[in-house]
Amino acid sequence: MNEIKDKSIAVFLDELASKAATPGGGSAAAVMGAQSAALTSMVCNLTIGKPKYAEVETDMQALLDKSEALRAKLTEMIKADVEVFDQLMTCYGLPKESDEEKAARSEQIQAALKEATIVPLDCAKACAEAIRLSRIAADKGNLGVISDAGVAVMAGYAALKSAALNVYINAGSLKDRDFADAKLAELESILQGADIASEEIYQLVKEKL
Amino acid sequence: MNEIKDKSIAVFLDELASKAATPGGGSAAAVMGAQSAALTSMVCNLTIGKPKYAEVETDMQALLDKSEALRAKLTEMIKADVEVFDQLMTCYGLPKESDEEKAARSEQIQAALKEATIVPLDCAKACAEAIRLSRIAADKGNLGVISDAGVAVMAGYAALKSAALNVYINAGSLKDRDFADAKLAELESILQGADIASEEIYQLVKEKL
Repeated sequence: MNEIKDKSIAVFLDELASKAATPGGGSAAAVMGAQSAALTSMVCNLTIGKPKYAEVETDMQALLDKSEALRAKLTEMIKADVEVFDQLMTCYGLPKESDEEKAARSEQIQAALKEATIVPLDCAKACAEAIRLSRIAADKGNLGVISDAGVAVMAGYAALKSAALNVYINAGSLKDRDFADAKLAELESILQGADIASEEIYQLVKEKL
Repeated sequence: MNEIKDKSIAVFLDELASKAATPGGGSAAAVMGAQSAALTSMVCNLTIGKPKYAEVETDMQALLDKSEALRAKLTEMIKADVEVFDQLMTCYGLPKESDEEKAARSEQIQAALKEATIVPLDCAKACAEAIRLSRIAADKGNLGVISDAGVAVMAGYAALKSAALNVYINAGSLKDRDFADAKLAELESILQGADIASEEIYQLVKEKL
């Protein structure tokens, strides 16, 4: 099967809308996060080399390196969501006749649920980073394309809040409450202040238009 | 040239990140809006036909019809942003030697700017509709996929706020202030309450997880 990122946007949207369980919200979150990083890169690419912005050239080059690495990471995450979901479904389908089978099945489901908690948590982390990077683009980027930094922050914010939902669901089904609580606490610290930061960055862009 | 929607996600992200002026934030907004509508459709498709949700079957079928029509419209808008930008650039490139040329160029730029104001305004309208549709999915959809309604609302919200930025930019450059003010007033009425509505829908989903 083709990787999702190699499918056309139209086909991805068709599959998202369909009754197939994947791709779903987790992949959509990663796509939005990747769009956020891409737009920060765009602002960098349209700032670097312009004499008017020579003063921020070094900063924009450093930002571009980070946003491109982040874009690669988030693009990989588009399929990660599908993989953990499929793994979870495989575990739910394991035989559950004997007590041994039941115990083995439950153990494997719990292991898959841990993975299905970590994957969107990693996505949330990357999206919080995308928001931070968009602030630098909004702050120092070429004014002619500054609105793209505003789209970058909104895409990153939507992606972060979307990934968070998948952490809540899967952490909620975990029996290992210490693990679940640790991951939920980590998520809360990632979400902390993201609302305000995103609104600030959006307003910063709006004032520059 | 291939239409953007027929390009792979990876290629779209590459082009978004590049120093080419298009595709930019306007296309990214339409992609997010289309993802929002697609996820509402997904919730419908995974609710319709389930005996447990027989009571909402008619509502979900009606919702699906609307979300699929909206998805088609937003998917078309991915390229609309590129087209109006290219048109505007063509007008800026017109000769401006003689007074006649200057006048003709200015007139064509202003006409293109009007179009470049209307296109993102239409996108904002469609995104506000995507938010409204996501509320029905969050309210009545299959609890097993309700998180996808939460991603739908965030994607729609980010798309709406992103499209708004392009309306601000282009309306700001218009000489016909009556036209510009009318379009900006229309935008404000579309944005009115979208923040609160989106947060409410997100919380509704979160409480159901």
